[in-house]
Amino acid sequence: MTDTDADAAELAERVRDGDLRLHELEAHADADTAAAARRRLLETETGADLSTSGAYAFDAAVADSAIENMVGATQVPLGIVGPIEVDGGAVTDTKWLPLATTEGALLASVNRGVSATRKAGGATARVLKSKMTRAPVFKVRDVAEAGEVVSWVRENEAHLREAAESTTSHGELLEVTPYVVGDNVFLRFGYDTKDAMGMNMATIATQEACEVVEAETPADLVALSGNLCTDKKPAAINAVEGRGRTVSADVEIPREVVESVFKTTPEAMAEANTRKNLVGSAKAGSLGFNAQAANVVAAAFLALGQDIAQVVEGSNAITTMDVRDGSLYASVTLASLEVGTVGGGTKLPTQAEALDVVGVRGGGDPAGSNADALAEVIAVAALGGELSLVGALSASHLASAHEELGR
Amino acid sequence: MTDTDADAAELAERVRDGDLRLHELEAHADADTAAAARRRLLETETGADLSTSGAYAFDAAVADSAIENMVGATQVPLGIVGPIEVDGGAVTDTKWLPLATTEGALLASVNRGVSATRKAGGATARVLKSKMTRAPVFKVRDVAEAGEVVSWVRENEAHLREAAESTTSHGELLEVTPYVVGDNVFLRFGYDTKDAMGMNMATIATQEACEVVEAETPADLVALSGNLCTDKKPAAINAVEGRGRTVSADVEIPREVVESVFKTTPEAMAEANTRKNLVGSAKAGSLGFNAQAANVVAAAFLALGQDIAQVVEGSNAITTMDVRDGSLYASVTLASLEVGTVGGGTKLPTQAEALDVVGVRGGGDPAGSNADALAEVIAVAALGGELSLVGALSASHLASAHEELGR
Amino acid sequence: MTDTDADAAELAERVRDGDLRLHELEAHADADTAAAARRRLLETETGADLSTSGAYAFDAAVADSAIENMVGATQVPLGIVGPIEVDGGAVTDTKWLPLATTEGALLASVNRGVSATRKAGGATARVLKSKMTRAPVFKVRDVAEAGEVVSWVRENEAHLREAAESTTSHGELLEVTPYVVGDNVFLRFGYDTKDAMGMNMATIATQEACEVVEAETPADLVALSGNLCTDKKPAAINAVEGRGRTVSADVEIPREVVESVFKTTPEAMAEANTRKNLVGSAKAGSLGFNAQAANVVAAAFLALGQDIAQVVEGSNAITTMDVRDGSLYASVTLASLEVGTVGGGTKLPTQAEALDVVGVRGGGDPAGSNADALAEVIAVAALGGELSLVGALSASHLASAHEELGR
Amino acid sequence: MTDTDADAAELAERVRDGDLRLHELEAHADADTAAAARRRLLETETGADLSTSGAYAFDAAVADSAIENMVGATQVPLGIVGPIEVDGGAVTDTKWLPLATTEGALLASVNRGVSATRKAGGATARVLKSKMTRAPVFKVRDVAEAGEVVSWVRENEAHLREAAESTTSHGELLEVTPYVVGDNVFLRFGYDTKDAMGMNMATIATQEACEVVEAETPADLVALSGNLCTDKKPAAINAVEGRGRTVSADVEIPREVVESVFKTTPEAMAEANTRKNLVGSAKAGSLGFNAQAANVVAAAFLALGQDIAQVVEGSNAITTMDVRDGSLYASVTLASLEVGTVGGGTKLPTQAEALDVVGVRGGGDPAGSNADALAEVIAVAALGGELSLVGALSASHLASAHEELGR
Repeated sequence: MTDTDADAAELAERVRDGDLRLHELEAHADADTAAAARRRLLETETGADLSTSGAYAFDAAVADSAIENMVGATQVPLGIVGPIEVDGGAVTDTKWLPLATTEGALLASVNRGVSATRKAGGATARVLKSKMTRAPVFKVRDVAEAGEVVSWVRENEAHLREAAESTTSHGELLEVTPYVVGDNVFLRFGYDTKDAMGMNMATIATQEACEVVEAETPADLVALSGNLCTDKKPAAINAVEGRGRTVSADVEIPREVVESVFKTTPEAMAEANTRKNLVGSAKAGSLGFNAQAANVVAAAFLALGQDIAQVVEGSNAITTMDVRDGSLYASVTLASLEVGTVGGGTKLPTQAEALDVVGVRGGGDPAGSNADALAEVIAVAALGGELSLVGALSASHLASAHEELGR
Repeated sequence: MTDTDADAAELAERVRDGDLRLHELEAHADADTAAAARRRLLETETGADLSTSGAYAFDAAVADSAIENMVGATQVPLGIVGPIEVDGGAVTDTKWLPLATTEGALLASVNRGVSATRKAGGATARVLKSKMTRAPVFKVRDVAEAGEVVSWVRENEAHLREAAESTTSHGELLEVTPYVVGDNVFLRFGYDTKDAMGMNMATIATQEACEVVEAETPADLVALSGNLCTDKKPAAINAVEGRGRTVSADVEIPREVVESVFKTTPEAMAEANTRKNLVGSAKAGSLGFNAQAANVVAAAFLALGQDIAQVVEGSNAITTMDVRDGSLYASVTLASLEVGTVGGGTKLPTQAEALDVVGVRGGGDPAGSNADALAEVIAVAALGGELSLVGALSASHLASAHEELGR
Repeated sequence: MTDTDADAAELAERVRDGDLRLHELEAHADADTAAAARRRLLETETGADLSTSGAYAFDAAVADSAIENMVGATQVPLGIVGPIEVDGGAVTDTKWLPLATTEGALLASVNRGVSATRKAGGATARVLKSKMTRAPVFKVRDVAEAGEVVSWVRENEAHLREAAESTTSHGELLEVTPYVVGDNVFLRFGYDTKDAMGMNMATIATQEACEVVEAETPADLVALSGNLCTDKKPAAINAVEGRGRTVSADVEIPREVVESVFKTTPEAMAEANTRKNLVGSAKAGSLGFNAQAANVVAAAFLALGQDIAQVVEGSNAITTMDVRDGSLYASVTLASLEVGTVGGGTKLPTQAEALDVVGVRGGGDPAGSNADALAEVIAVAALGGELSLVGALSASHLASAHEELGR
Repeated sequence: MTDTDADAAELAERVRDGDLRLHELEAHADADTAAAARRRLLETETGADLSTSGAYAFDAAVADSAIENMVGATQVPLGIVGPIEVDGGAVTDTKWLPLATTEGALLASVNRGVSATRKAGGATARVLKSKMTRAPVFKVRDVAEAGEVVSWVRENEAHLREAAESTTSHGELLEVTPYVVGDNVFLRFGYDTKDAMGMNMATIATQEACEVVEAETPADLVALSGNLCTDKKPAAINAVEGRGRTVSADVEIPREVVESVFKTTPEAMAEANTRKNLVGSAKAGSLGFNAQAANVVAAAFLALGQDIAQVVEGSNAITTMDVRDGSLYASVTLASLEVGTVGGGTKLPTQAEALDVVGVRGGGDPAGSNADALAEVIAVAALGGELSLVGALSASHLASAHEELGR
């Protein structure tokens, strides 16, 4: 038993005895020992063996801003997709994209689609909007007062900007849009947060602006987030107006490439896309008109230190496919892809390494260009995923592909 | 340089020379060496250092069914929430729930909410529906033929069941529901997949049933998934009819517990919940009427080997809060939580350890009870997250909480 | 001044004096005189001249069950569309359809589309589902009790059927589907209401069934309609599961007909339909994937005595267009078209005459076949409207068509 | 047989003989005779008696811009609601509102609710946004070109405004918002159309602007409406951003008024509203969070010459109810109420009379104030409908009310 083991055992004992609380361990030991103590406690309480969870390859102190009550790390297989040819607004290059997943066949699928775009000369990609939002909800007396508050906000955006931007050295307040429902006034603040995903920056800046609203108008703040942001919920407001990056990627693939890579035709793929991704999603009452954008976005977010709960809106996508002069035109448009290359999970070792593989770790030059580039690379990979799955479906072999890959 | 390093270097060289393709390495070396070769190649091509990504604590061969083109592993900080008192249909016990995330303050938030439910005597939870779905789309000649196919399906469900169940020893076909849009016929197959999340089981069984449909009716299969399933897209059909587990959790918290834990009142929390989660989400055109269900679902899915792309529909939730005789009544209902305790990512070491912590690894007795129990524990944790965030918002300190925790 | 005029003047005076209340006039005079008195009062109070509103061509007593506080009638221009060739499940015939509207160019547009379907040999139509719904919401103690109530309902559908059907000689209870959100239990009752639109029948029958639920389970009724019906609100539950009639119509139009009638090509129309009705609606976060179904449904509902507020869900439609062997295939599917040929507004004179023009007034043989036939005729007219507007748009002359027709 | 009868008979004969086409009759006779000829023809063909349909009280020539193939008029019972006390932004007065419907109990219901608002001192109302929209869809080569077109539009709004406004003496272009989906560029044009509902004005102005876009950018117009407008389809874009008037009305009703008028309590009504209109609608995947806004909007639109197909989006509403210091606070917010007091159906006699009753016929002073006032009056009536129905439901007597009123 090492000293650390002994310390951990003792700490675990003290927690069991009610002498210490589980989240207080870091005050009594270094972060790694505290985590070891929690593993020890859980092993005793549940009979589980947590040795692999404890075999993490980073300094627990580094994870301090990412987790509380740390016990170790979850390890998820990491693979690589590429090379990806991107003709983007922020990146014109050949890129590799790391993806982490437990879903067998996913990387093979994306790689197949990406190879088709490569054989077609690469995919085009563009960030079309960029804006992180936070939307507090205020309470007013009645709809007349709501109207007054809305007027005040429209006339005092500069005032709000000053307050909001006083809290941040990088962020810029782009707009404040008011929405009213009876005695509720929602103000949707939109920020340029550069290379940061920006939720915290937006939250802190908006809190400051809310104090101005409360001081200058009769509105009372009810909640700093009123769900019109909309964070981590599927919402039409994001699909329509965007959040984070709105990014599109497309490609025109020659018939012979479609036939050789996907074993089907442009016509069959366009038809499958329309019947499944457009008509099927319409009938399902869906906000997602795509095949598997969430698979790619989730695997990229996980590998690259993004917020995986934002896969909910980050995967909001419309996929289109048409036949153009015998070739297959395909596009994917992600309305609300929230990405950042600084802050949050990007600081963790494996995640930082993955950002280095893409070549976008840290702040870009100009500011925001790294996050733009990341959005464009993910969009092209998502396009690859759409092509591959629609191709597989129209070649009628989805299930057999899974069977072969042993999932 | 070890032998493995040398082998990896040589393999990387051969890939660069075009002698081998990236996904063929496992045919020329063991899985770990193949991964090392890929890291080597990427390091050369991109300048990244992938040493931490390579320091994974599992046998690469184990990940074979989870990833292709493996280069290593992503490591995500893992923490613990609990103890959670659950009065459920499948579990009546005190449980610990591991969560993996990079979002600081999340576990502290969930733990705070969970502690309030514990002080209230524990939360109630119930799985109300259980059904994994797959919905192929067929093409017919016209709406008259569509009507004929629908009639045939309604009259021959037993025939379809026989075909579908011939592919699986565990799964049961519960129902087939037809939907028509012009010359498109969608058949939504619903299965009881027991302790498996069940997408693959459902896909393979449905493929077999589709062959019967094609043989016996004029319908032609266009795509094995027609997006009425709906997998990994937010869709009302899941919110209404459910997918995976439909699970609810609720609690009645005495006023003094609300005041001591959340520093606010039942009235303030109920008001914030209505204005934000109900009215705000309504105005946003959202399919999610909750505060942060996705945070809890994503962190639990990641820790426990679930499919993280299914956070999209897994986090579909409605949260309600009311004042009852001075206490706070709060509930969360997750309409389409797809979980499994066998198969997929549950086989990976850290994920299996986490399932052992919850006590639900592998098949349950009776079959399906482990997945039910997991759904109930996640629902109670999600309820904790809702309580804590709505409590924090109504106490006006969301942003400051984040600041203090250094996110 | 006639006697009626004198009586009306006196009654109006008494209302002004506070001696009588406006809705009590029928107790003091015949219905026509009461209406005249109200016109007199309004003319005095507002300066308006209501002579045309008073020149209605029906007996006011007939309108007694349709309106309160009657003052006269609104007159809306009525036109005719046809002949419509319908190859339906309930009607295989040539039909004329009266439409009432104030929107210039609408009838010309529909007629143009209908003529194209006629030149193509007629349209096919089928009612695919038929079910009127009412969904009360109950309150329970917690989610455990919710689970118990759901189980009870599933096991006691026969009991509920008996109660529900005791209130009606025609209606049949087809199904009861439970939905739970925390401490709310919604029961969606679905009825076959034959040739009646059926809202009242469903409401009364459901009320009776609710008494059984309250007597036999711990559930307390909160509201007889809990908005999962869903009546007169756009809702995915109707789009997915249907309400009233789910009806589809389609046609395959030879290229030369497309070119001669619409001055465009099948390819251009299919493309415009996909970009506008599928992709555009997807981006708009819409529940309606069509061009102008509401125009046709509203004008038909108005002419034929249907409930015009049900245009909201009655117009829920998906329109598809594809090129098939050089021809244009087009379909429209209305998910929730609530129609009836007995009861409600169908009893009024002009509305009854319009139903006679279609040949569907009163109960059908077999019961329900008249309402089915009406649904099929409306669907084919809606298809005509879709074809015409998409044709006009793809021929780039929407606005000029409006200009010429002088709207 | 009058001369007109004889002429009509002869014309009908010529149509039957194929000598004339049905829509050509106005070229051979006056409008009334043409309509009589069509009735004659239909009576012969279908056996229907159309005498009441022919007994219309307006000059058929007046209906010329409202209908084609006229046969007569549909007559719908017209009643009156009021007096309505409105404390609005455009109207501060006591108003009467004519409603046309065939739904028994509706006017009684609305009047009951309106009387409660009156006893509470009147309702407050405000138009919060005003904007008629039209959104053409263009096709571009790829997403790079889409980005260029978007940039051009953002920089050349003045250019587009000039073109658009060249077509109208009243309308003003307020904004052009671009949205991209792959190779589709949607431009949502928003206009101030003053007292006109404005669809035609917006369409014609947008067509002119589209010519500029086509001349100055590589974009090709596919359809003048790309469904992001969104006209006559339920769509989140309207619910979020508004169309026509966004208008709210609210009231605070003392407990004793709630008890005397609705026979229930503020608490019971607030609870029923939350469970039905918020939670129920959420679970239904609805875009409408109200009880019966469509009933009021439809009946008002019909009586007042509005476009009844726009009930689809015009009834998009969120209703909230809370208890405030023992009183009931209630609000209704209509996001996209498209109304006009000039043009369209407002020119027809009974409709013009109804506008006179409200006191808003023709252009207002300032321009737009009449349509604003109309929106506010309708909003207060809709609030009355919400109060009454929720009151009735919480007093458990919806069905019995219907029974008594004999529907």
